[in-house]
Amino acid sequence: MGLCNSRKGEAKEGFGGPGPQGRHLDSELLGETYQKLFGRDQRPRGCKVVQRVIQALKPLGLSVRSPILKLGEDWIFLFLLGICMATISFGLDVVISKFQRANLWVYDTLEGYRALQYFSWVLYHTGFMTVAAGVAKYISPQAAGSGIPELKVTLRGVVLSEFFTLRTGLAKLVGVICTLGAGSTIFLGKVGPFVHMATILATQLGRVMVRVAGTKENPARKYEMLVAGAAVGVACCFVAPVGGVLFSVEATGTHFALRDYWRGFFSATCAALGFRLLPLLHGESETVAVLFSTSWRVEFPFDLPELLSFALLGALCGALCCVFLFCHRSLLPLLPRLRRGEILHAGLVSLVLASVTFPHGLGQYLGARLTMKELLETFFNNCTWGRAELGGLNASRQPPHPSYGDPWLQWTHPQLSSLEMLSFFLLAKFFMLLLATTMVVPAGYFLPVFVYGAGLGRLYGEIMAKVFPEGIVSDGIRIAIGPAAYALAGAAAYSGAVTHTLSTALLVFELTGQMSHVLPLCSSVLVANGLSQRLQASFFDGIIIAKQLPYLPKLGVGRSGAHDIYAEDFMVTDLQFLPRGCRYKDVRGLLKASSLKQFPLVDSQESRILLGSIRRKHLAKLLSEQLSAEKRFQHLLWRSEASGPHTAPAGCRRRFRNPRGEARNTESFC
Amino acid sequence: MGLCNSRKGEAKEGFGGPGPQGRHLDSELLGETYQKLFGRDQRPRGCKVVQRVIQALKPLGLSVRSPILKLGEDWIFLFLLGICMATISFGLDVVISKFQRANLWVYDTLEGYRALQYFSWVLYHTGFMTVAAGVAKYISPQAAGSGIPELKVTLRGVVLSEFFTLRTGLAKLVGVICTLGAGSTIFLGKVGPFVHMATILATQLGRVMVRVAGTKENPARKYEMLVAGAAVGVACCFVAPVGGVLFSVEATGTHFALRDYWRGFFSATCAALGFRLLPLLHGESETVAVLFSTSWRVEFPFDLPELLSFALLGALCGALCCVFLFCHRSLLPLLPRLRRGEILHAGLVSLVLASVTFPHGLGQYLGARLTMKELLETFFNNCTWGRAELGGLNASRQPPHPSYGDPWLQWTHPQLSSLEMLSFFLLAKFFMLLLATTMVVPAGYFLPVFVYGAGLGRLYGEIMAKVFPEGIVSDGIRIAIGPAAYALAGAAAYSGAVTHTLSTALLVFELTGQMSHVLPLCSSVLVANGLSQRLQASFFDGIIIAKQLPYLPKLGVGRSGAHDIYAEDFMVTDLQFLPRGCRYKDVRGLLKASSLKQFPLVDSQESRILLGSIRRKHLAKLLSEQLSAEKRFQHLLWRSEASGPHTAPAGCRRRFRNPRGEARNTESFC
Repeated sequence: MGLCNSRKGEAKEGFGGPGPQGRHLDSELLGETYQKLFGRDQRPRGCKVVQRVIQALKPLGLSVRSPILKLGEDWIFLFLLGICMATISFGLDVVISKFQRANLWVYDTLEGYRALQYFSWVLYHTGFMTVAAGVAKYISPQAAGSGIPELKVTLRGVVLSEFFTLRTGLAKLVGVICTLGAGSTIFLGKVGPFVHMATILATQLGRVMVRVAGTKENPARKYEMLVAGAAVGVACCFVAPVGGVLFSVEATGTHFALRDYWRGFFSATCAALGFRLLPLLHGESETVAVLFSTSWRVEFPFDLPELLSFALLGALCGALCCVFLFCHRSLLPLLPRLRRGEILHAGLVSLVLASVTFPHGLGQYLGARLTMKELLETFFNNCTWGRAELGGLNASRQPPHPSYGDPWLQWTHPQLSSLEMLSFFLLAKFFMLLLATTMVVPAGYFLPVFVYGAGLGRLYGEIMAKVFPEGIVSDGIRIAIGPAAYALAGAAAYSGAVTHTLSTALLVFELTGQMSHVLPLCSSVLVANGLSQRLQASFFDGIIIAKQLPYLPKLGVGRSGAHDIYAEDFMVTDLQFLPRGCRYKDVRGLLKASSLKQFPLVDSQESRILLGSIRRKHLAKLLSEQLSAEKRFQHLLWRSEASGPHTAPAGCRRRFRNPRGEARNTESFC
Repeated sequence: MGLCNSRKGEAKEGFGGPGPQGRHLDSELLGETYQKLFGRDQRPRGCKVVQRVIQALKPLGLSVRSPILKLGEDWIFLFLLGICMATISFGLDVVISKFQRANLWVYDTLEGYRALQYFSWVLYHTGFMTVAAGVAKYISPQAAGSGIPELKVTLRGVVLSEFFTLRTGLAKLVGVICTLGAGSTIFLGKVGPFVHMATILATQLGRVMVRVAGTKENPARKYEMLVAGAAVGVACCFVAPVGGVLFSVEATGTHFALRDYWRGFFSATCAALGFRLLPLLHGESETVAVLFSTSWRVEFPFDLPELLSFALLGALCGALCCVFLFCHRSLLPLLPRLRRGEILHAGLVSLVLASVTFPHGLGQYLGARLTMKELLETFFNNCTWGRAELGGLNASRQPPHPSYGDPWLQWTHPQLSSLEMLSFFLLAKFFMLLLATTMVVPAGYFLPVFVYGAGLGRLYGEIMAKVFPEGIVSDGIRIAIGPAAYALAGAAAYSGAVTHTLSTALLVFELTGQMSHVLPLCSSVLVANGLSQRLQASFFDGIIIAKQLPYLPKLGVGRSGAHDIYAEDFMVTDLQFLPRGCRYKDVRGLLKASSLKQFPLVDSQESRILLGSIRRKHLAKLLSEQLSAEKRFQHLLWRSEASGPHTAPAGCRRRFRNPRGEARNTESFC
């Protein structure tokens, strides 16, 4: 589980401590180099780069301040945030696709030398993952993992140190390039890291804007910036402004101000626009369109009995998701044992994964040459695989080859049918994904789950199409079954169940540009979510629990029982306290009976009005002083036996006169 | 504005009073009849019908309690809520379409007798609106208007009496049948009333469920029920589960728990499913599909320069919306003058509107024979009107006639082009809608605004298609302009601007089942919203202000200025108070200087720790008693001149000794 690999102690440090010390001890030399490179000092919230930018911007800021204030500085901030993240997302995509093409080119030019091909294939993936793990280990441990669990904790008010610094952001960027460069072999995604990077950018940009506009820094404002940042992060991965906002809110928050919805929506729209316009400027795409265009029948997209079938798919996704989450949570406690060996571990895991996906080995049954995006494209493809195989394509069956223009042909093979390949893909990827989540690298876990769900839905849909080759007939109208719709539903239901969110349905609609299946999709997502919410904590909550970050358990959604629980039902009533007029005997008894470090001092046994608190050590001191005074007193008593009744007997009531009970010592008693 | 017609006083009463008295005084006789009919007593939160249902369900409840509790009673509640509202919505649609068909049938059979046609047309509309106004006047004044402003106020914690009773719900149902029966002539909708009815049903059903499941009633739970109810209300009007939830939240709330999002989503999905499945069972529709099916090009739906055009449409919608909201708010203060004349007013207004839309008069240029749904269908139609006119259809131009199979043909006329008709429609409907909003009837104001926006967008799109007949050429690809997309954008932008919501974009997608235009639509909606939020309060907020319900002003969205305002910036610092040791002179000065009815009593001038409060009349009494005592004292002084220095001189410091300052009188001073 990337993030939580053995850094339990550090995560705890993060709450109040100055920063992750344990990890930097064995990398001081490297750490110094980076310190020079990034000009980073030990102040947890300051960053010299930002300070310098602010210094440089100061004269400019003063001149633009009034027009900015006039227009509303938040709009400018949100616009900049969206555009910056879109640029980063697009740039990253370009870089990664270059890497992946280069890998395939090398692989294909080595055709005939199988050993060399294997070597290049493994080296490419292992190298990338080792670098990613190294970045997470040496530059910024906070950059490891997806970042969504930590963001969730931050939005609940816990301050995690170093989580929103530029250094972490840069480490995350480099790491995620490596992870994504390794592609569908490693099977990790970009959503989580983008959410994290966008929140880092929002924090840093917010600081700059505050200086430029001359307003005060404010925690509420920072919170709003983080929420907007999270929305932008999702939106610029999926070109999904609405779904992005909702997914980020569902994944990170528990409560939600509509004011933030507005900001997130605006910023996410800017990000999505930017992300779609940049390919145009880059000359890649001809026009602005959805990511995965589909064109289904809109008049009769599905039929009534199919709704049940979609609900069944939802149940299947929910059940499988529970198994996945259970395995994942069982793996998490084993991870701390990997401490100090993350890089080696990442290398070994990627070696195994790359060996499995070697395109001339098992990889030919796994669609190993396809990128994550191409996998989704093949799953969301309108044609029915089972039917396409029947018609003519069987003749040209051959093992995967670069000359295949259509990614779909990667799912054809002489020995196996497409459905068998898809089943093998799903079986293998289940364990491969579990293995991949153990690496401590900057990576997202939403996209792989999404792709997996799409594959699951596709398989279900293809089987449905096989079972009902004539489609479902209702009222005399024959409606053919579209496996692509099942792929959509599977993606939404499975990813929704893993993350405990409903807005994955919206993401799917925005990805494909068609919403005709809104009702069956919603049913699948609801059923899958219902199952997984009842049986398992979400993926992100699992990480939070494993990392021992503060965790608010969810209230049961379907029951009103939570409304009938009062504080008195679970509060401690067997309190230990000192009433105002207690005796030394009581104090001694209390000190013996309890191991509390501080004791509440109350007005009386009955009213229990809190007056203050007394530390254990003060009480002990008082008691020992009293005992020595008593000895002295008895000594005096023994010396002057006939002094009369005006001296109090040793057993008389001795009371505290001082409610604060600290400053004065035994002189004030008796 | 329906709701707020002259019931300012009552709205205020509603906050704590037992119920609207003023209106019932002059309708006691009728009121008694209804009281017998509905078995309603004066307890504001009890209803005998519900009590009886609960009594009848008790033995049943005890036997089903344990399985219900096992499954989670909330799920059952939400499911029932969704299905019930879907059934009501569907039943209402069936009834209304029957009414409308009957009206047209009568109209067409009277062909040749123009006067009789006019009489039947006017009688139909006037009759319905008079009944609607009568229901709102005599059965339940709370049923008038849309109900969304009051719901908004309720969700902010203000208790409005009689707002969630069965009586109000039934009145709303009857009223809304009449209003909708009057159709596009009156141009009012069903969203608001459905939201209100769904919240009423949620309240009542929640009470039954609480009894059946044996749990405690709880304000937080009630709040959640209301939120879910609002979502259901929108969802079962539009078959839009996601958009429904978001729109209801945006229109009614300011903060929002994700827990409620879940409930709303589930319930809204049930409602939407029910609403789509019921026509199937009723044999109306062949299959489950979206309400307005479109089938656009998905590969190249729009081009980059068109984005600007969409933003321009957004600005246009925003500007026109500001004019509309301004006119609406200017009309609101005039409405209280209509007090006691609502029924007459409704009759007159509907007479005017029906005369204007008389299909053989001006109505032939207004598409008067079309229902609201058919209007939307024609606006969202894929073909380009301007082009369709060129090809062949011109020859068959004739005035509107029942034989027209295609509703679109209602927009053709021998003398006028379609665009001229559409412009006239928009111009006339602007004033007609303003006029219609002055009627005090149960009616929604979202749908008319939505239809109006669609018309506006359609006009804009048709003009664009005229100006660029070849479409927009970019990078060598010619992309024809689709006016239907502009109609969608116009509907979303205009209705979003009027209600200050963004989720209208989602509603549009869910209505049409295509999401390929997500980016241009989002731009339009954002631009329109930005304009209207900056310049005007929303439609619903306008009503809240006019009705003098408690209103929280919105914080400026784009500015961070709100973050820099502290309580001290606007709190009153010139406080008037009594310190503990003040003199009678100070009390007299305070009583003279201030007109407060109570004065705070503080510890001292410096610390200002509040000890309690003193009523003005007690202070005045103290002072007068002191003055009479002083007179007696001076009288004594005068009688015994030589009594010496032990009596205090008249000017000595006399202090309050009693911090409560009430119970004891002058004896305790001095």
